Amino acid sequence: MFKNLHESTYMNPFDDTYFMKKALQEAELAFDKGEVPVGAVIVFNNQIIARAHNLTELLNDVTAHAEMQAFTAAADFLGGKYLKDCTLYVTLEPCQMCAGASYWTQIGKIVYGASEPKLGFSVLKTKLHPKTKLISGVLEEECGYLLKKFFIEKRNLN
Amino acid sequence: MFKNLHESTYMNPFDDTYFMKKALQEAELAFDKGEVPVGAVIVFNNQIIARAHNLTELLNDVTAHAEMQAFTAAADFLGGKYLKDCTLYVTLEPCQMCAGASYWTQIGKIVYGASEPKLGFSVLKTKLHPKTKLISGVLEEECGYLLKKFFIEKRNLN
Repeated sequence: MFKNLHESTYMNPFDDTYFMKKALQEAELAFDKGEVPVGAVIVFNNQIIARAHNLTELLNDVTAHAEMQAFTAAADFLGGKYLKDCTLYVTLEPCQMCAGASYWTQIGKIVYGASEPKLGFSVLKTKLHPKTKLISGVLEEECGYLLKKFFIEKRNLN
Repeated sequence: MFKNLHESTYMNPFDDTYFMKKALQEAELAFDKGEVPVGAVIVFNNQIIARAHNLTELLNDVTAHAEMQAFTAAADFLGGKYLKDCTLYVTLEPCQMCAGASYWTQIGKIVYGASEPKLGFSVLKTKLHPKTKLISGVLEEECGYLLKKFFIEKRNLN
């Protein structure tokens, strides 16, 4: 019985929700800087090897999405440019650019939180790498809430 | 008659071919470094404000395509993150990532040389910004020749 408890997924603290919470913490850092609050982490062997949040305003660079920075940082950490055995956790569905970048990384898995029905990669049919698994809707509500809060506050300021 | 000569487009040294030659010079720099030879320049008011070539091997980063670096450099030069009045010249048809990045830059015009029938943005139907004009096939043969030469040499080395 004790063995069963250990083997059950219930006991595994390193599930998709756990890592998405870490990505959400990154999104909150973006929020605090006045950036569109999107955060990402990249995980390899249950270890976070890259953390990033959207910095397009601060860096004055539309390519500075959380995912792009995370891909670069993860490859730097691993010393190889492919991320075949890694998982990207990102609070918002990736755009064409970030999904296109993920193709080149050959990343093993992408897990995202909130959907992006207008400019997300799935509605725009961006091609993922054939080896990339996809999971959506993890902590969807929490991820989406932070984005809604950001845009409501921004609207009220203008 | 003299005035007419000056006014003719024939006398304008700043045409698409002129700037594509500059992009090709960048591609040659990539070739010399053993990188897939793709080069790009970004032009604003007939002035080159960014030059870049593919550095994915050297930087160990699949996102280090010529266009991505050029977008970042051009925005840095202009001090604003949009490139509405700029033109990107790139020797190879952009991929999904780079075309997706161009969407965010709202770049005015994209001019490319050789086509990429497998992973180019046009066959994969990546969405460009509605204000982005597109011209293809400028110095197509020269741009394609350098790529072919690179892959033939690489094959012979292995």
